[in-house]
Amino acid sequence: MPAQRSTEGVNLRAFIRDIPDFPRPGIVFRDITPLLLDPRALAVAVARLARYAQDLEIDFVVAPEARGFILGGALAQALHAGFVPARRPGKLPHETLSAEYALEYGLDVLEVHADAIAGGARVLIHDDLLATGGTASALSDLVAKLGGEVIACAFLVELRLLGGRKRLVPHPVHALITYDE
Amino acid sequence: MPAQRSTEGVNLRAFIRDIPDFPRPGIVFRDITPLLLDPRALAVAVARLARYAQDLEIDFVVAPEARGFILGGALAQALHAGFVPARRPGKLPHETLSAEYALEYGLDVLEVHADAIAGGARVLIHDDLLATGGTASALSDLVAKLGGEVIACAFLVELRLLGGRKRLVPHPVHALITYDE
Repeated sequence: MPAQRSTEGVNLRAFIRDIPDFPRPGIVFRDITPLLLDPRALAVAVARLARYAQDLEIDFVVAPEARGFILGGALAQALHAGFVPARRPGKLPHETLSAEYALEYGLDVLEVHADAIAGGARVLIHDDLLATGGTASALSDLVAKLGGEVIACAFLVELRLLGGRKRLVPHPVHALITYDE
Repeated sequence: MPAQRSTEGVNLRAFIRDIPDFPRPGIVFRDITPLLLDPRALAVAVARLARYAQDLEIDFVVAPEARGFILGGALAQALHAGFVPARRPGKLPHETLSAEYALEYGLDVLEVHADAIAGGARVLIHDDLLATGGTASALSDLVAKLGGEVIACAFLVELRLLGGRKRLVPHPVHALITYDE
């Protein structure tokens, strides 16, 4: 099983591909798909995220579509937690709660099922990327509306210059790969 | 670790919630979110999908956004395989290949990165739901364009009346939960 393999000696950053001028001129997109393609890098990423959160007694992992789902489901499983998908409007079929947020590239809305988690539940927020923190902040608002408690936020990649970590205060924030430029 | 726990005695179907008239009048939507919320059901679903595919020597799991990512990433990890996200147009930052397909509710396009997998790679197609088979058939087309080989298709839920399985011939198809009405 991947979780029992050593996670030492794997440089996850080496699996991130820089794509200049995507989605707009002047933006360097950090493409995680080469990391996902590599079985060992994928396993190590999930194992390291799980190791960060393993003593936090997480009940649910909340993650936004679409890329947040890729490691989010695996992370929930590794933590013996449930998974709550946060989705674009109109995608969830039952009663929902919603939160608006500012993306790096515009405005958007995320929804969760109104009965997704029980009051007092301990929640880990996950996404592949922490940029301005808008998405994760909206998830934090949604967890509060549901009556849950955000215990921490765990990301694969953090773009530090965009200041997302400050926006998530007072929640602890962990990222496996950070960029300072 | 979840994979070592017994997967016996868990009735995954009991975690699917029927939502009448979603997304259209007359359609019963099979809502998987209660299954995802339950840590044991989530772990059992991933373990059963992995058990089906464990001897197939899968190199990559290919799954479409967004719901296919939730179990797809975990399944790839469980199989020690890589993960290939198939996405809506414009989402993947590098050179892509695309396939059009008819959804149950309209037309759509999926893309994968053109360098996603090496020629001859053994691929498992995954999605949460097999309905008409349009999405999975498009994924199969994309895998062929990439030079890979579709070894099997594994779903959480299959709606048998919609005939998706026939559309995926000759690929083996497995689903954990099937509906005949």
